[in-house]
Amino acid sequence: MGRESCVKRLKEITGHNAVKLTPSGDHAVFLAFLSAKQLGKKRILIPDQGGWLTYKEYPRLLDLEIIEVKTDYGIINLEDLKNKAGKDSALICAQPAGYFAEQPIKKISSICTEKNCLLITDISGSIGDKSLIDKNADFMVCSFGRWKPVSLCFGGSISAKKGFPKEISSLTGFPDELCEKLEAELSKAEEKTREWYELSKKIKEDLKSFKIIHPEKKGINVVVEFCSEQEKKEILKYCERMHYEYTLCPRYIRVLEKAVSIEVKRL
Amino acid sequence: MGRESCVKRLKEITGHNAVKLTPSGDHAVFLAFLSAKQLGKKRILIPDQGGWLTYKEYPRLLDLEIIEVKTDYGIINLEDLKNKAGKDSALICAQPAGYFAEQPIKKISSICTEKNCLLITDISGSIGDKSLIDKNADFMVCSFGRWKPVSLCFGGSISAKKGFPKEISSLTGFPDELCEKLEAELSKAEEKTREWYELSKKIKEDLKSFKIIHPEKKGINVVVEFCSEQEKKEILKYCERMHYEYTLCPRYIRVLEKAVSIEVKRL
Repeated sequence: MGRESCVKRLKEITGHNAVKLTPSGDHAVFLAFLSAKQLGKKRILIPDQGGWLTYKEYPRLLDLEIIEVKTDYGIINLEDLKNKAGKDSALICAQPAGYFAEQPIKKISSICTEKNCLLITDISGSIGDKSLIDKNADFMVCSFGRWKPVSLCFGGSISAKKGFPKEISSLTGFPDELCEKLEAELSKAEEKTREWYELSKKIKEDLKSFKIIHPEKKGINVVVEFCSEQEKKEILKYCERMHYEYTLCPRYIRVLEKAVSIEVKRL
Repeated sequence: MGRESCVKRLKEITGHNAVKLTPSGDHAVFLAFLSAKQLGKKRILIPDQGGWLTYKEYPRLLDLEIIEVKTDYGIINLEDLKNKAGKDSALICAQPAGYFAEQPIKKISSICTEKNCLLITDISGSIGDKSLIDKNADFMVCSFGRWKPVSLCFGGSISAKKGFPKEISSLTGFPDELCEKLEAELSKAEEKTREWYELSKKIKEDLKSFKIIHPEKKGINVVVEFCSEQEKKEILKYCERMHYEYTLCPRYIRVLEKAVSIEVKRL
């Protein structure tokens, strides 16, 4: 019951016929790289910011080369992707970048297809918004960790358009005991995402006198650059007054600039 | 509470100070190989029988060479180990071999130390019997799967004498929700093992007119060779009469001979 419903739901969301529950989002990322390696890929293309920590850690474990693709504050630069994508590579990118800015995923996907570059999308932040998901990706990975649209505090998923290499299966694994809770979380993801989008819009409106990064792009978090200590102080004061959690950048998983990331996904 | 108690218990059993709960025993095996790779090892020595399926699958995923070590029906041949062990290798072996025959683990451990070969012991079948565990192993892996001394039907553990390479941690992971159950299972392992040993002795006595493999060695399962269809039939009839589950060999995870493995660990 529980497990099958979860897998069915994930098949609908991803459009992929092969879906595995995993012990974490990181496991899913690792298994995606392992699959890429099994498929003969030699290098992993990662965004130069707006990614996730393990994008930088795991390729090395598997003797895969890391190539950074330029971004506009997390959003993949399509020209740079065209230059770097090739048949021996796989691109991983988070949708939305750093949980705050929608990637032009269809364009990214077209370039990858054209260049025979494998595409791995990290849908941890978009599992609740179908419009951000391009079913043409080769693999999709997702985290069900804390402060995510699917916030089980355990587990994740990996899905594949064309199935998994054989050895990957035994490295997935998710306990029966959590399947019911997961089912409930999955069914809440869309509404949570919608509410976060609303809050995100409100915050962007509140802070419109500041330099919000990608203000027009769909996203959950709101990232606000500052140029002075004074500006920083004002932004933080706003966050504290409103009881909004925030983290300070530069951070690879948001942007590599002086900025405040208002963590709407924690609210 | 639950998690800490489990880790404490595993530290006592293994004598290792670094312990991680994992989503399965296979994950633990994989992470042990990944650690070996991180430590510069190039080849994995595995027993030619009496091992576990993934000993043969995972090294290839990590570009590690597999070398089989000769065994006496699963028990490592020490001379062959001496010839093959070296500073660029890691040995993995199950204790007891195929859940049925105690390895001379201290001798194995001494040879590995002398040859600078990393030693990974799979204690899935010995976690309930301290006398079979040599705390000098570099890594110990354990499965908490179905039909094991710790039979949680999910999870496993990996422990390290000298700590883990940094990147390994994020690939472990075990849900809080199962820690209490695990604690209970861990506390039952010794008694279960003792009861299995008793039953195993009784079966060996019942079948003493047949060729039992390693009858004097400590083990949970009982493996009985047969030379004719008639003998096979008699052994199976005994199993059916006694309601003992069995599997038929040759199988890499037991012995590569015509034999019946009476799966005491399932009883």
